Amino acid sequence: MAAEIVNPRSDSSTAQAGAAEPLDDFDPAFALHRGGKMAVQATVPVRDRDDLSLAYTPGVAKVCTAIAEKPELVHDYTWKSQVVAVVTDGTAVLGLGDIGPEASLPVMEGKAILFKQFGGVDAVPIALDTKDTDEIIDTVARLAPSFGGINLEDISAPRCFEIERKLEERLDIPVFHDDQHGTAIVTLAALRNAVRLTGRSLGDLRAVISGSGAAGVAIAKFLLEAGIGDVTVADSKGVVSADRGDLTPVKQELAAITNKAGLSGTLADALAGADVFIGVSGGTVPEAAVASMAKDSFIFAMANPNPEVHPDIAHKYAAVVATGRSDFPNQINNVLAFPGIFAGALQVRASRITEAMKIAAAEALASVVGDELSADYVIPSPFDERVAPAVTAAVAAAARAEGVARR
Amino acid sequence: MAAEIVNPRSDSSTAQAGAAEPLDDFDPAFALHRGGKMAVQATVPVRDRDDLSLAYTPGVAKVCTAIAEKPELVHDYTWKSQVVAVVTDGTAVLGLGDIGPEASLPVMEGKAILFKQFGGVDAVPIALDTKDTDEIIDTVARLAPSFGGINLEDISAPRCFEIERKLEERLDIPVFHDDQHGTAIVTLAALRNAVRLTGRSLGDLRAVISGSGAAGVAIAKFLLEAGIGDVTVADSKGVVSADRGDLTPVKQELAAITNKAGLSGTLADALAGADVFIGVSGGTVPEAAVASMAKDSFIFAMANPNPEVHPDIAHKYAAVVATGRSDFPNQINNVLAFPGIFAGALQVRASRITEAMKIAAAEALASVVGDELSADYVIPSPFDERVAPAVTAAVAAAARAEGVARR
Repeated sequence: MAAEIVNPRSDSSTAQAGAAEPLDDFDPAFALHRGGKMAVQATVPVRDRDDLSLAYTPGVAKVCTAIAEKPELVHDYTWKSQVVAVVTDGTAVLGLGDIGPEASLPVMEGKAILFKQFGGVDAVPIALDTKDTDEIIDTVARLAPSFGGINLEDISAPRCFEIERKLEERLDIPVFHDDQHGTAIVTLAALRNAVRLTGRSLGDLRAVISGSGAAGVAIAKFLLEAGIGDVTVADSKGVVSADRGDLTPVKQELAAITNKAGLSGTLADALAGADVFIGVSGGTVPEAAVASMAKDSFIFAMANPNPEVHPDIAHKYAAVVATGRSDFPNQINNVLAFPGIFAGALQVRASRITEAMKIAAAEALASVVGDELSADYVIPSPFDERVAPAVTAAVAAAARAEGVARR
Repeated sequence: MAAEIVNPRSDSSTAQAGAAEPLDDFDPAFALHRGGKMAVQATVPVRDRDDLSLAYTPGVAKVCTAIAEKPELVHDYTWKSQVVAVVTDGTAVLGLGDIGPEASLPVMEGKAILFKQFGGVDAVPIALDTKDTDEIIDTVARLAPSFGGINLEDISAPRCFEIERKLEERLDIPVFHDDQHGTAIVTLAALRNAVRLTGRSLGDLRAVISGSGAAGVAIAKFLLEAGIGDVTVADSKGVVSADRGDLTPVKQELAAITNKAGLSGTLADALAGADVFIGVSGGTVPEAAVASMAKDSFIFAMANPNPEVHPDIAHKYAAVVATGRSDFPNQINNVLAFPGIFAGALQVRASRITEAMKIAAAEALASVVGDELSADYVIPSPFDERVAPAVTAAVAAAARAEGVARR
């Protein structure tokens, strides 16, 4: 998909005496990341006085005046509708936890270049020096005029839920917490194809989700919206059910809408007879619990680098096995969703990303698999070039149908 | 300096029915600005699973962990030390005034691409949806972890002074209000060469500055630091002197350090016998007042597009004439300073931009003129390729000498 790119900054000559770290020498990851992974480029020429007088003063003044008089022109004459802020506070970075804003930047830059490579969307990492919910909301709201969308990233639960909800209320551009919805969308796409493969219906399935953080909560809600039969969520203390006295407000809400079966007890208890296992928590599920699931089950063990159920064990019992890893079939990878979702939303200048747009994204992603559907192919590869255009078109069409598109 | 660049977004096919503006058709400035003037690019490849596993998960995790353990590594392994935030609140944009954050974006993007073209510095426009001084300070402080420097832009006086001072106190990266210091640095460079041309000394000169906004205040302070004999500032009500009862705190401070001659009255009164006129306010200076200046005066009439003294009139009386316009000789243009200043500061990871660094920048800029010095050539062209490297090197060396360099 990308032309060959050479990182001009990874040249070792840029390292100054006394400042160079030996890390680059023994690990290719450090050499690759030296100087960062991204740059800004001009898309207009600034070669001479004529160029300067058009791109900058005095020519730029009339463009500014036009926007001041007709604010929606900002989408036409700036990069606003091309660029997304990738915002984090560094509190839930990969599996590393709260490592702070600076240490989170390599991930945010990585996310930014994935936006560009896979969706053609410009993205800028914004790592914030605050963990306070209200301060994060205020800060993002204040810098929003510069951006066409806000991708929240690696912000820990439960703060991430409130931050996203309040920003959606305040802003007229899409706000999307990828750890929640990106994961949920790709999971639903894989599940739709697993259902199709086995000739079942989503409404017949009972799923058990291990993990009640950002991803677990979002997947549970999203699968219910999509029409799954039942979902039971388990956290480290067992099944999230209304009779527990230790639930946070978020988990109380979850308990109210999930677990129609009225289960209690451990994750293993909930798995008995379940059709789907979705792991977004880490830890290990005992083989006996896997064996107790219904026939032709689906096991999506997405913890990285160690899936909750190793695929070798999962395959003994399940009809479809997916993981978060690239070295097994059926990788549930958010990069399948977020570039196309923002590309589609920006294309039609959507004011928000609705549930119908997320469902449309999952359906488009599932449809890419088409007739090649098999137990080892329920979700496309991140490098399948059909993915981003399909998701982009579906999200843009859904935005128009939802009435949130502005062109 | 730049290779030919074609704006892929200026293609008219990107305009959607109903959204296209006819503006592009009758004005090349609008066509040029369509879709904005900048983009993000990846500097590392993401072609396949191996690339992805190095640039993103799992490879990125060890880079994050290394930064968490040794925070200064953020400068080595992210783009932080390559990238500057161009921050505005849209209150003092060009000569247009308070046009708001969205309408200011074309200028901020223009600034960003000048940073790149002339200094090799990546820059990101951040236009804020607040005019509150404390909110601006808090917001910029919170997003600072992502950036190697903060360029404040087009924030109105007197708020700009407090915002810059408090951010300098809070942050360990350079904070630089270009409307103040960029203008002051280029003015001093031109003045140094004018002094050299006419065989005088800076200490012999009395300057009169018309305008007491961001630029006027900064130029006055900077010329005094550089050793000018005396500076008198005039605002719309006349000479800023301690006996006036209507002075803001900023102007009271200015009155205390300027106007050793104890002048009062109008701008025209102050100009009688003055050696230097510096216009940063607009308006027109009567020819009689220009005629009353000392022999071999210097007239820097920098208002755009209409200089306070037209060069045809100024040349009747002055030894050296400079303006802010590109179509007359001696253009005082901030682009001569800010790219090299930030490039030099970032190169050595300076924690701030000191007065000595600013003086060094002015001297380096003046020195580029060298033996070609003439009345029509006291300041280099913005397209002189020697400028940015000279300023960069001088600023980096001064930062080391000042003890604010971190490598």
